[in-house]
Amino acid sequence: MENLDVVVVGGSAGGLSAALTARRHYPKKNVTLIRKENRAMIPCGIPYIFGTLEGPEKNLMPDEVFEKNNIRLIVGEVETLNTGGKKISMGDGQEIVYDRLILATGSDPLLPPIPGMDKENVFPVKKDLPYLRSVLETVNQAKDLVILGCGFIGVEFADECRKNRDINVTVVEMLDQCLKVAFGEEACRCCQEIEEALIQNGVNVITGTKLTEVLGNEKVTGVKLSNGKELKADAVIVGIGVKPNIKLAKEAGLDIDRIGIVVDSNMRTSDPYIFACGDCASKVSFFTGEPCGLKLASIASQEARIAGANLFGTRRKNQGVVGVFTTMVNNITVGCAGMSEKWANENGYEVVSGEAEAPDRHPGSMPGMSKLWVRLVFNKINGELVGGSVRGGSSAGELINTISACIQNRMTADDIAIFQIGTHPAITASPGAYQLINAAEIALKTIKTG
Amino acid sequence: MENLDVVVVGGSAGGLSAALTARRHYPKKNVTLIRKENRAMIPCGIPYIFGTLEGPEKNLMPDEVFEKNNIRLIVGEVETLNTGGKKISMGDGQEIVYDRLILATGSDPLLPPIPGMDKENVFPVKKDLPYLRSVLETVNQAKDLVILGCGFIGVEFADECRKNRDINVTVVEMLDQCLKVAFGEEACRCCQEIEEALIQNGVNVITGTKLTEVLGNEKVTGVKLSNGKELKADAVIVGIGVKPNIKLAKEAGLDIDRIGIVVDSNMRTSDPYIFACGDCASKVSFFTGEPCGLKLASIASQEARIAGANLFGTRRKNQGVVGVFTTMVNNITVGCAGMSEKWANENGYEVVSGEAEAPDRHPGSMPGMSKLWVRLVFNKINGELVGGSVRGGSSAGELINTISACIQNRMTADDIAIFQIGTHPAITASPGAYQLINAAEIALKTIKTG
Repeated sequence: MENLDVVVVGGSAGGLSAALTARRHYPKKNVTLIRKENRAMIPCGIPYIFGTLEGPEKNLMPDEVFEKNNIRLIVGEVETLNTGGKKISMGDGQEIVYDRLILATGSDPLLPPIPGMDKENVFPVKKDLPYLRSVLETVNQAKDLVILGCGFIGVEFADECRKNRDINVTVVEMLDQCLKVAFGEEACRCCQEIEEALIQNGVNVITGTKLTEVLGNEKVTGVKLSNGKELKADAVIVGIGVKPNIKLAKEAGLDIDRIGIVVDSNMRTSDPYIFACGDCASKVSFFTGEPCGLKLASIASQEARIAGANLFGTRRKNQGVVGVFTTMVNNITVGCAGMSEKWANENGYEVVSGEAEAPDRHPGSMPGMSKLWVRLVFNKINGELVGGSVRGGSSAGELINTISACIQNRMTADDIAIFQIGTHPAITASPGAYQLINAAEIALKTIKTG
Repeated sequence: MENLDVVVVGGSAGGLSAALTARRHYPKKNVTLIRKENRAMIPCGIPYIFGTLEGPEKNLMPDEVFEKNNIRLIVGEVETLNTGGKKISMGDGQEIVYDRLILATGSDPLLPPIPGMDKENVFPVKKDLPYLRSVLETVNQAKDLVILGCGFIGVEFADECRKNRDINVTVVEMLDQCLKVAFGEEACRCCQEIEEALIQNGVNVITGTKLTEVLGNEKVTGVKLSNGKELKADAVIVGIGVKPNIKLAKEAGLDIDRIGIVVDSNMRTSDPYIFACGDCASKVSFFTGEPCGLKLASIASQEARIAGANLFGTRRKNQGVVGVFTTMVNNITVGCAGMSEKWANENGYEVVSGEAEAPDRHPGSMPGMSKLWVRLVFNKINGELVGGSVRGGSSAGELINTISACIQNRMTADDIAIFQIGTHPAITASPGAYQLINAAEIALKTIKTG
C-alpha cells in the first residue's frame, strides 16, 4: 500500500498533459502517471506511421519527459477504484491510496453494427504499439485496402497507406463529401480540394455510400456497399469515431452521461477528489453549453491543463469546447474552428458569413505562394465570431489558431476588421489583402448597410 | 470645381485601405483616391525588388482594385488644403470640395545628420518607382554596397542586394545586434540567428558602430566609421527610419504633435471632417497610451479601416498600437509583438516571462520540421500578456498574429494556458508541446508558487 499525492490514470495526450500541469502547479506534491501501455503512441501521428514515418516506433511519446519532470511512471492496469477509500487497485494486486486522482482513460474505437466486423484483418484504430505493428504488416502485404469513414482519420489513413506501396486504397464515406461534418456545406471547397488531392494521389474515394457487410470467411476478402456493389479487400481500416473508456469510473459509481464521465467546469467529477479529462470526460459546447461529443487530442490536452491546475484549489474554468481541426494532403492545408453554418442554424443561431481569398505572399509573385482562403461565420445578433474555415499552405495551420483565439475572446466582426496583425512579403498576404480581416469586413456588409 | 463625398489623399497601404473601407461602409457615397505616383509600390515588398522579385515592376499595387470597387483614382499632387471651405487644390489648379477627407500622406525616409549624405549614390528608401529603378541600376553596377541601419529594412535590403550579384554588401548598425530595438535583450537569439543567416549568405555585418561620414567627391566612394575604419562604397542605402509627411496638414492648420497629425481614437483630426491614418498620423501605445513612433504598413492599414468606417459616424475605436513585426532570412522566420521586456521595464511595468521551444511537427521526425521557439512577456500585476517573440519556420509568421490576438484581448497566462488550439502532425507541435501554451505555463511558475 502506497500513499501518493497525485495519481493520473492514462498516458495519452490528456494523461501526460495532466501530469505535467500538476507537476508545474504543485511542485511540492509527488505526481504519478499510470498507463497500461509499455510505450504510448502520439495519437494524431498514428496515420503517419503507415507512410511518412515508416513505422510505429517513430511515433512514440518521449518517455524522457517523466524523469525530466520528476513524474513517476507506472506501467500497469488499474482494475478497481474505491472512491470512499481514495484507493485504486492494480492488476498485479498493488494498492495505491491517492490524495487526488485524474482519470484520463481515453477512448476505444467505435465499430459500426455491420455484419462481418469481427473478421480477421478488420482493424479499428487502437492506440497500441504491438497492435499497430501488426496492422502495418498486414497493410504492407495487402493488395486491396478499404478504409471505412472519410473524416480526418480516414483522409489521413487513405493518403498515408497508399504511399510507397503497390496497393489499391478505397475510402468509403456515407456523407456526400469527405470531412463534411467538420466543414459543413459552406466550406465544402475544403472537403472537395482534399478529396481531389486524395484522388490525384491514386486513392479511390466513394462518397454517399454505406458499407453494409464485410465479406469473407475467417479473413476479410471484400466489402459490400449500400449501392449493391462489392469491393475486393484483404484489409479494412475503420475510422468512424471513438467511444469513451469509462469502465473504471462507472464501476466506481461516478456519474456518467451519454458523452462520458460527468465533470464540472473545474474538470472535477461527482467525487470531489477525482478529476477527469480528455476523451473519457463529458464535454459541453463553448457556444451552446449543450453536451458535445467532440474528441480530439488537443481538447484532451486543454482539459488536462485545467484539471491539473485545479487539483488543490480552483484556478481555471473550462469554457467548453470550441473544436479546432486541421489536416493536410499534398501541401493543401484545411482547417476549421467553432460552428459550421449548418450546425449554428440547427442550434438556433442566426448567422452571417464572409469569405476572402488572396495569395499568402505579397506581391503574389513571391516564391512559395499559395492561395489562402478564409471564411468566417458570425452571430448575426451580436456580431461575435462563432466559426471559421481556412484553406491554404502550411501557414493555414497556425491561422486557424488565430481564428480560434478570436472565437474564444468573442471578438466581433468589427473587432477583427481592426485586428492588429504583422505582415511580411515572404510570409503572409499584404495588410490590405489579409484574408482574416477582409472576411470580417465582407461579413459586415450583410450585418449593416451604409 | 468638383464636389465629392469622400476624398483620400495618398495611395500606399493606408490610403488604399481607407478608400476600400469607405467604399464598403458607405456604398452610396462616391470615393476618390488621389496619389502623386503614377503607380504605387507595395511598401513592404521594396527590399525584395533587389533580389527575389527582379525589379520594381514586380512590386506594384494592383490598380484593378480601383475600378473593381468603384473608387475613382486621380494621379496628381494636392498642393493646399482649405479646411474652412472643405476644399483641396491640386498642382494643376483643379479644385475639389470634399465632404470627408482622409489624409494618408505617409512618410519620407530619414537621413542622419552625417557629413556627405547629399552625395550621389546615397539612397534613402523612397517608395517611388522611377527612383527605385535607378537605385536598382546603381546596385547592379556596384562592387561595394554599404547599408546604414540593420533594423528590418536593413536586414532585408542586405540579404536581397547580395542575391545573384558579385557584390560586397556591408551593413552598419550602431546597436550591438541587428533588429535589437524590436526584439530587446530577451529575444536576442532572434537577432543573433538572423545576423548569422546574413553572414552565412555573405553579408558583412558591423554592429556597435556608427557611420560618421560619407566619403567621395560628387559620388560616394566610401564611408567612415566611428571606430576610425573606412569602407569602400560605390553606393549607400540608408534604412534608419522615416519621418511623417505632414506638410499639407500643417499648412492647413491642423494640430500636429511630435509623432504626426493629431488624431483622436476615431482617427479624426482637429478638424471634424478630416481624418488621418498611417505614417502621417500620430499614434499612442496600446499599453501605455503614450505617444508611439512606430510606423508600419500593417498599422497604416488598420488605422485606415478605423478612419474609413468612422467617416459619417463613429463605429470603431483605435485602441493604440500593439506593434507586430516579422521577417525571414534563409527560411528562419522571426517575429515579435507588443512590448519587449526592456521597453516594459522602462515604462514602469513589472513583467515576468516564459519561453518554450519544440519541433513544429509531431513527432519531430515528420518532414519539414523546424524548431519553433516562443517567448511570452506578462504583466506581473494582472497576468496579462504584453509581448511575445517567436523564431521558427514559415508558420511562425501566423503564430505571431495569434500572439497579437492574445495581447489585444488582454488574455492572461492562465487564459493562454487553456487556449483551445488545433494541432496536426504535419503542421504544428503536439498539443502537449505547443509552444505558446507552454511558454504561458512556464511564466506562471514565476507568478505563483504551488
